[in-house]
Amino acid sequence: HLSKLPDVGTTIFTVMSKMAVDHNAINLSQGYPDFPSDPALIELVVRAMRDGLNQYAPMPGLLSLREAISEKTASLYGRLYDPVSEVTVTAGATQALFTAISAFIYPGDEVILFAPAYDSYLPAVELYGGKARVVQMKPPAYKPDWEEVESLITDRTKMLVINSPHNPTGTVWDEQDMKTLQDLAVRYDFMVLSDEVYEHIIFDGIHHQSASKFEALAQRSLVTASFGKTFHNTGWKLGYCLAPSGLMEEFRKVHQYNVFSVNRPVQEGLAAYLKDPRNYLNLGQFYQEKRDHFLKMVSGSRFELLPSSGTYFQLLDYSSISDEGDVQFAESLTVEKGLATIPTSVFNPGGEDFRQLRVCFAKTTETLDKAAEIINAVQ
Amino acid sequence: HLSKLPDVGTTIFTVMSKMAVDHNAINLSQGYPDFPSDPALIELVVRAMRDGLNQYAPMPGLLSLREAISEKTASLYGRLYDPVSEVTVTAGATQALFTAISAFIYPGDEVILFAPAYDSYLPAVELYGGKARVVQMKPPAYKPDWEEVESLITDRTKMLVINSPHNPTGTVWDEQDMKTLQDLAVRYDFMVLSDEVYEHIIFDGIHHQSASKFEALAQRSLVTASFGKTFHNTGWKLGYCLAPSGLMEEFRKVHQYNVFSVNRPVQEGLAAYLKDPRNYLNLGQFYQEKRDHFLKMVSGSRFELLPSSGTYFQLLDYSSISDEGDVQFAESLTVEKGLATIPTSVFNPGGEDFRQLRVCFAKTTETLDKAAEIINAVQ
Ligand SMILES: CSCCC(=O)C(=O)O
Ligand SMILES: CSCCC(=O)C(=O)O
Repeated sequence: HLSKLPDVGTTIFTVMSKMAVDHNAINLSQGYPDFPSDPALIELVVRAMRDGLNQYAPMPGLLSLREAISEKTASLYGRLYDPVSEVTVTAGATQALFTAISAFIYPGDEVILFAPAYDSYLPAVELYGGKARVVQMKPPAYKPDWEEVESLITDRTKMLVINSPHNPTGTVWDEQDMKTLQDLAVRYDFMVLSDEVYEHIIFDGIHHQSASKFEALAQRSLVTASFGKTFHNTGWKLGYCLAPSGLMEEFRKVHQYNVFSVNRPVQEGLAAYLKDPRNYLNLGQFYQEKRDHFLKMVSGSRFELLPSSGTYFQLLDYSSISDEGDVQFAESLTVEKGLATIPTSVFNPGGEDFRQLRVCFAKTTETLDKAAEIINAVQ
Repeated sequence: HLSKLPDVGTTIFTVMSKMAVDHNAINLSQGYPDFPSDPALIELVVRAMRDGLNQYAPMPGLLSLREAISEKTASLYGRLYDPVSEVTVTAGATQALFTAISAFIYPGDEVILFAPAYDSYLPAVELYGGKARVVQMKPPAYKPDWEEVESLITDRTKMLVINSPHNPTGTVWDEQDMKTLQDLAVRYDFMVLSDEVYEHIIFDGIHHQSASKFEALAQRSLVTASFGKTFHNTGWKLGYCLAPSGLMEEFRKVHQYNVFSVNRPVQEGLAAYLKDPRNYLNLGQFYQEKRDHFLKMVSGSRFELLPSSGTYFQLLDYSSISDEGDVQFAESLTVEKGLATIPTSVFNPGGEDFRQLRVCFAKTTETLDKAAEIINAVQ
């Protein structure tokens, strides 16, 4: 049989995590928080299970959770999504992204992606016979050249995928970026898929510019978000999608036949937990302290530290140390020095190679200090 | 924008469940067990969460769970699937089915489906531009005419989807059915997607004929299964897929970008719980008693009771009572008599209409007795 995704191999997160284990290395590769989830949230889920709430949730998600999501979104970004018809709970943000692309991309449709990017957008587009048009962003700012974006738009352009705060670079888009995008989306009539999983991990007083804040943009956008990254439980696999009802109707047609519905006890727990904004509003501060501590610890190293205004990722440029490719460099760092990172080229297939590694700083101070020691010793 | 699935409306399970609530009706419509999940299993999941096992599971699933699945499959059906490369844990069996179709169906590929059938196969095929060729099965036996199957095979036939024990009819295929299928699959070189979610709900001493039992068939099959139906926790959304490594490799390429991985604490709990076969081997007996009780209670009714050898579903034929269409008849039964069922025509779009309702008997004796009273009163 043929392969529909011939270029896909084992995910880098699996490869690097295994290499980290095999070589007993500090693991700053795959992005996940190394902190306990709030025991209060865990006990809410426990109670739901013990109370017997273990059968199918409704297809679009528990209404109480959709209401809590709608209230959070309205209070933060000023747009009211109808919980009945415009909010859907998903098995993680990845499933929301896949489902959105599934619902709208036909063979021959063009989708504008920015590179580097999270690794799931491109294969989903290709699986449906869509064609990606890629805008290469460049260090240190990693912002798009909007003239280049406009030059790639054709009458087949169906969708553009954005991600702010941005994995892997930590770049955060400002209001002007969003307005520029909105103008293009309206003028050329395309949809926007906005991956906002790091919405609460944002630093230095900067505000997250959700696609939902911009009326004309929100009208044509699907917004995806994650609970795992916000509440330190990436293994629960709960996320959601927001969209105007016309788009959501199509999204749900696929969602219903993809996963049908999502873990019920976790939804019960989150519905209650989400009501208290203190449970997510302090997250930026928490991670800013992590970032600042880490940056201070490695400030004397030979790596160049790129700016990170959001996410729990930080790029390290090693071009003053070595001329090696980043996969090779990351492997040596893991095997010989005991530190696992992610080579950024995996987020940039076929694109430019910038001699940069991504580290995840969602780790304990002890882990970060040990990692810093290794980083500082690289000559 | 266009719709990729123009014919999909709100799922019948949602419609009927809402109608049941609105009219305070007994709900035998959507298939889910009305019994508590084993507290011992719940406590295993609780312990995993409290122990902090709340970050991403590996992409193909927790190895300990895959090993337990592999052992169960080997002991029941005699085929050893390599836990590393041939078992993948999914967000319910529906996600496994959707992912299997996603990984293999190209525009123009033909897929043979049997009707009636669970409602998710057809939209998934259509989403990828595949073309369904439907074999209509007929009451009371609801078995396929194999000559008709063979007559529908063309050089574009890529896959055939089977489901035994069968939703909604309760039909179970025997060894001869599987061998006939195997011969065709080998001769005409197509894949088989075998939906075996009711494998443990089987009656009267009949044995489940898994596609994994037949060597040449297993070589070209993806087998999907469910924990929710086996352990009374459909809301946990855990299932799995089995396939030879070559097929599994392609399955995982899509799985990785669809959901990436699946709820970790539930996997931890199931990995331990699955080790004791008593936790699933008594399920057939348990449901057989339900079925027998229900059949006895309604034996004097005007409905004809079709044979059910597996699943928690039973078909009731009302053609001696009314000539109405089944959607209309099911609605009246809900609104006027207070009993919600599923009209079987929803499993048979564009097919023959057999004047039959599906009831789910995975309910308490009290609920079944109340339902029987209503059924017996219909004149
Ligand atoms: C979905 S697994 C990888 C987690 C992640 O988002 C990342 O490391 O980039
Ligand atoms: C996935 S929701 C419906 C449950 C079910 O399988 C059925 O009722 O047929």
